[in-house]
Amino acid sequence: MQISRIGEFGLIERIKKLTRTDSSVIKGIGDDCAVIRGSANKYLLFTCDMLIEGVDFRPKDRPYLIGRKSLAVSLSDIAACAGKPGHCLVSLGINKNTKLEKVDAIYKGMLDLARRYKVNIVGGDISRADKLTIDVSMLGEVEKKYLILRSGARPGDIVFVSGSLGGSIRGRHLSFEPRLKEARFLAENFKPSAMIDISDGLAQDLRQILKASGVGGVLYEELIPLARQARSLREALYMGEDFELLFTLSRSQANRLFMQGLKLFRPIGEITKAKSGLKLIDRENRIRFINSGGFRHF
Amino acid sequence: MQISRIGEFGLIERIKKLTRTDSSVIKGIGDDCAVIRGSANKYLLFTCDMLIEGVDFRPKDRPYLIGRKSLAVSLSDIAACAGKPGHCLVSLGINKNTKLEKVDAIYKGMLDLARRYKVNIVGGDISRADKLTIDVSMLGEVEKKYLILRSGARPGDIVFVSGSLGGSIRGRHLSFEPRLKEARFLAENFKPSAMIDISDGLAQDLRQILKASGVGGVLYEELIPLARQARSLREALYMGEDFELLFTLSRSQANRLFMQGLKLFRPIGEITKAKSGLKLIDRENRIRFINSGGFRHF
Repeated sequence: MQISRIGEFGLIERIKKLTRTDSSVIKGIGDDCAVIRGSANKYLLFTCDMLIEGVDFRPKDRPYLIGRKSLAVSLSDIAACAGKPGHCLVSLGINKNTKLEKVDAIYKGMLDLARRYKVNIVGGDISRADKLTIDVSMLGEVEKKYLILRSGARPGDIVFVSGSLGGSIRGRHLSFEPRLKEARFLAENFKPSAMIDISDGLAQDLRQILKASGVGGVLYEELIPLARQARSLREALYMGEDFELLFTLSRSQANRLFMQGLKLFRPIGEITKAKSGLKLIDRENRIRFINSGGFRHF
Repeated sequence: MQISRIGEFGLIERIKKLTRTDSSVIKGIGDDCAVIRGSANKYLLFTCDMLIEGVDFRPKDRPYLIGRKSLAVSLSDIAACAGKPGHCLVSLGINKNTKLEKVDAIYKGMLDLARRYKVNIVGGDISRADKLTIDVSMLGEVEKKYLILRSGARPGDIVFVSGSLGGSIRGRHLSFEPRLKEARFLAENFKPSAMIDISDGLAQDLRQILKASGVGGVLYEELIPLARQARSLREALYMGEDFELLFTLSRSQANRLFMQGLKLFRPIGEITKAKSGLKLIDRENRIRFINSGGFRHF
């Protein structure tokens, strides 16, 4: 049987079942970061993302932005756990005929973003590869009281998103700002019950929260903020690469956030009981089931 | 200018020069692991290795051994710093037509070795790729007093290796045992002044120690232990993938190690002043300069 039959998420589930971890691992496979026992009041966060030419960027994309994105996606994972990034390693698979200027530009993109978010690039590995491949692994930390996982959403919670969605693949995915500041603001001033960054699409990533939390959800079409580049609701639901925070707050906390008049955080739905699955209420108030689309590697 | 003009090590030097780190980084780019401030008496070790089909293994190699190697090479880096491994992430780039059984076998190889060395596989990333690509990033730790870097070798020190060399590419590179126990034995009972694991070949990796330490070195042909699979001295010097420990000890410590009669650790040369470079004394007592060969990605 080929892996495409069970798909990317089937494969992850399979690997998860095979894997045992000891008591120093607070959260292993299945969240934005692994969470590991650290000092008395902090956890270590540990995450990696592999970008491959032709999948995550095009050969013709600006090398500076390719490098920038390779770091930004891991920063976004740290943000989704409300953490602070610290150190990273860069594994680079590259063709030997690559121009030096291109490598310089890739690293410039990484280094500029690293400086901005006070991340140390502490090492890496270089290998020969046909297609440009960049895997960044990142260490961060989070105060125990601020850690946010995917698994805490409860029926009645309100679903929020940190910006507009859709059409990111037409450019924004290469230059998005990881929502580190916003995530810290939320963790320090509110108590999000669950959080994830939207990389595979609103529908699919909300499903990750629903599954991890054992709940259902409903989205309101009229509330979903479409990005300028988005051509349809479908793109907002399924296209992915938005790298916005998707999070849930209790109703009282949601009211408090709403009262602050921060336009960035938009309520887009609510959490329901598990058996109701994931639904969309469209502009005509009709209930639509959301299919299981979204970005998948296979 | 193409990167092949400056080569793998030229490229690493270039990246190193561009990179700034803060005071929490004890050792950044340029050793087997990055060394990061940890708890009061320990450092964090952080390392990654990217294996690519056709470069680090052949398409027909046993998937179990490919998975095993992907973890073993990072364990070997942790060993070279005299550390203990703790947690790792696995980024997997894989073709969608891959058989599920192959993926299972790859993970079985990783998980068996992880269990043996008490490493938690805490997460990862899966991407679509033409050629099987596995990047493992690993966290470990080491007591401050036991940390061994490449940079401490001094003239007069004796050069040792932890096993025999050469011919590893004909099979051993897929099934070698990372020298974690041996490295800890050395750190706890002796005080190696420098250490590295031999991945690119004895000559090239010894040069890394010489360069980091600002010293020269001499090897004695008759002392270099050839592996059963090695066909020539050249293979021991330049072939790489041996994953043995290469380390230096002061003369008095070397005598003490020698007196213990441990056959595993073999003295193969000594450290000299920087200006003498790296030389080989052959079986006829002639001085030969060792060329700069060894494994390079480009």
